[in-house]
Amino acid sequence: MRRLLLALAALFVVLPLGTQSLAAQSPAPADDPDRKAIEAALTTQASAWNHADIPAFMETYEKSPDTTFIGAHVAKGFAPILERYKTNYSNAEQMGALTFSNLDVRLLPSACGKVEFAVVTGNFHLERTAKGAATKDDGTFSLVWRKGPQGWKILLDHTS
Amino acid sequence: MRRLLLALAALFVVLPLGTQSLAAQSPAPADDPDRKAIEAALTTQASAWNHADIPAFMETYEKSPDTTFIGAHVAKGFAPILERYKTNYSNAEQMGALTFSNLDVRLLPSACGKVEFAVVTGNFHLERTAKGAATKDDGTFSLVWRKGPQGWKILLDHTS
Repeated sequence: MRRLLLALAALFVVLPLGTQSLAAQSPAPADDPDRKAIEAALTTQASAWNHADIPAFMETYEKSPDTTFIGAHVAKGFAPILERYKTNYSNAEQMGALTFSNLDVRLLPSACGKVEFAVVTGNFHLERTAKGAATKDDGTFSLVWRKGPQGWKILLDHTS
Repeated sequence: MRRLLLALAALFVVLPLGTQSLAAQSPAPADDPDRKAIEAALTTQASAWNHADIPAFMETYEKSPDTTFIGAHVAKGFAPILERYKTNYSNAEQMGALTFSNLDVRLLPSACGKVEFAVVTGNFHLERTAKGAATKDDGTFSLVWRKGPQGWKILLDHTS
């Protein structure tokens, strides 16, 4: 029974530490499931934008009062961010076609071995025939992601 | 002995989950040690800037090739970020006096109960008598922090 206890202790102590140092030292390969899930979320998000569906586009953000969008101003909270998008892009022509480029997905493993946080940097481009309150067609963004019960969601979006 | 095993199992399963849900639901109080450590790091960083000491200012960033600074362009890697600062602010007059305002420190507890990541948003202001390649005196920043062996360090800085 003492050996069973020792084996249990080893499982809890050694496994997470081993996982951590591996994950922290090597970048996630292209087929890493977390990387693929984040890339898929971005593809889904751009597709929602290109169907002029802002509520579906917003599904990629955490539904939290702490979720933050920094553009020309700071918007804090899922609902204010949704309102900001609706105000700044009031129809399909103002939304246009969104593409992302130069995506850099960086997974941030925790010391306990889990991958719950990630940062993504990249560029956006809008191809469109009209402009509303938001006048930028090109820019750079950084996104902070967290993996929760609903999968990977954005908790901070800084676009400039 | 079976009761000891059950107690051990309960310790590993219940404690981290309890810690997580508590930490995720309530904002960290003003005297939270992680919040205070991040605020102290920012104060030290601004003080280094105001002594025109860019290498000391850079101590607040993770010494990693993955550390990223997004300004007018994306700079990736601790060394390129250091060079960028040296090029864009070539003397004490161009650096001037740096102040931060509207600081919002958001700790991001992991599911295993540890606090290893945080995001900080805020504004900067430069009071100075000369300008070099960097012309902005005011702006908004978002910082992603990680607590490692050297304490809290910035792994992503987006300033616009």
